Amino acid sequence: MEHNSHAPRARRAAPERDDDRRDTLVWGKNPVTELLKSGRPADTVYLADSLPAAAAGYYTALARQAGAVVKKVPAHKLQKICAGADHQGVAARAAEVEYASLEDLLAAALAKGEPPFLVLCDGIEDPHNLGAILRSALLCGAHGVVIPRRGGVGVTGTVMKASAGAAARIPVARVANLAQAVRELKEENIFVYCADMGGQPLERTDLSGAVAVVMGSEGSGPSALVKKLCDGVVSLDMAARDTGVDSYNVSVAAGILLYDIMRRRAQGAV
Amino acid sequence: MEHNSHAPRARRAAPERDDDRRDTLVWGKNPVTELLKSGRPADTVYLADSLPAAAAGYYTALARQAGAVVKKVPAHKLQKICAGADHQGVAARAAEVEYASLEDLLAAALAKGEPPFLVLCDGIEDPHNLGAILRSALLCGAHGVVIPRRGGVGVTGTVMKASAGAAARIPVARVANLAQAVRELKEENIFVYCADMGGQPLERTDLSGAVAVVMGSEGSGPSALVKKLCDGVVSLDMAARDTGVDSYNVSVAAGILLYDIMRRRAQGAV
Repeated sequence: MEHNSHAPRARRAAPERDDDRRDTLVWGKNPVTELLKSGRPADTVYLADSLPAAAAGYYTALARQAGAVVKKVPAHKLQKICAGADHQGVAARAAEVEYASLEDLLAAALAKGEPPFLVLCDGIEDPHNLGAILRSALLCGAHGVVIPRRGGVGVTGTVMKASAGAAARIPVARVANLAQAVRELKEENIFVYCADMGGQPLERTDLSGAVAVVMGSEGSGPSALVKKLCDGVVSLDMAARDTGVDSYNVSVAAGILLYDIMRRRAQGAV
Repeated sequence: MEHNSHAPRARRAAPERDDDRRDTLVWGKNPVTELLKSGRPADTVYLADSLPAAAAGYYTALARQAGAVVKKVPAHKLQKICAGADHQGVAARAAEVEYASLEDLLAAALAKGEPPFLVLCDGIEDPHNLGAILRSALLCGAHGVVIPRRGGVGVTGTVMKASAGAAARIPVARVANLAQAVRELKEENIFVYCADMGGQPLERTDLSGAVAVVMGSEGSGPSALVKKLCDGVVSLDMAARDTGVDSYNVSVAAGILLYDIMRRRAQGAV
């Protein structure tokens, strides 16, 4: 363990079908306490509803320090999450990566002497989609990806796997407030575009220069506030209409947009 | 049941996490026999290794007639597939859609007065990827998608869901031999491009006119024979190299290619 002295000596779950849990879940009071105090970033702390209020308060405070989201769940659900193990009312999922800050992402662009090129994920829930977006963002030369602390998947083991390892290669900033992040980027003179229906066609949109693209969640798209704050809305074309299918898969849409931005940056005097 | 008299009155599994199984799995000797004789297309027939040879032969013959792949599995694995139910050594997964033929796809293009535009999936294994490809193919105006009978996922419930319903709107042909399908398309003067590394950059490739694009499997890309038969190989650009990530997610790559083809068809005198 010498090379990894910050990792808690925790029991780990190994249910069959979920890589997330195999990689990053710990349970039981001591292991969770160790994880949350270890300095290793944590995604989620699960508290059984059967946990006494004092204990729940203790773990909630620790979770806050570690930057983790707290989820209260029925005890039988926690039992399932932990694959039947004796969880003592508490479990936690560690993050797969060290998250960066928004400033780190901008610094990365500056260090390369390039105008910033960022992707903001506004509540992507499917780890396959977030993984594929991180992969495209890396390959298309984006300087980083921004995800919200709440409402959306973190960089879990499944995301890491779906990203083919890209999640470890591109900085991911997890922010408390995505709308605030949009405001900050605009103050840095970055043009923030929201990908959604009913906007300007991609073909007639100038995505060169300092740019950030917001991708909304699978079910409901970008949140109203975030969309309103953006400088513009960009839409993808569709040859087939009235099919009952009115949007691309979000990771495909992100791929098309990021590829287009990469192409323009390569061509133009960016 | 009057409106659906061909559907077998089968017991159906309902495990929690797998939409495929909830939607389309039947088990037990009579239900499987009914399904395979119903005329409804079937994807896979599972035979427990404990099944006597005569019974295995019987179901293998029925499976062949129904166009299904036969998989022999250990009895305990079949038990798991069937969520613990009494499977009597046999289970089958029905297809979610009626498959089309390659001729149907070409006829669809002809009926629209358009040069054929097809997507061939050479062994896509992840249902999320096949679903996203079907969705992009529909939206980008492709006339159909070709998948192989073996080596790759069929149009299962998970694929249907991942496609946002597109799988029911775009014809899917399932062929015994994908290489043979490439030969047939070339005889119809369709230019068949294989998406893979080391080919011609997309930006310098003429994908207008009658065209088919082959997308390879997640792990190993297109098969050597199929790639060799293709008229050309097209590659996507990457801004970031030597990152350890050397390809886009296959459904993202397909989306970028299909979107590009759609754009050119919309612009040019196709």
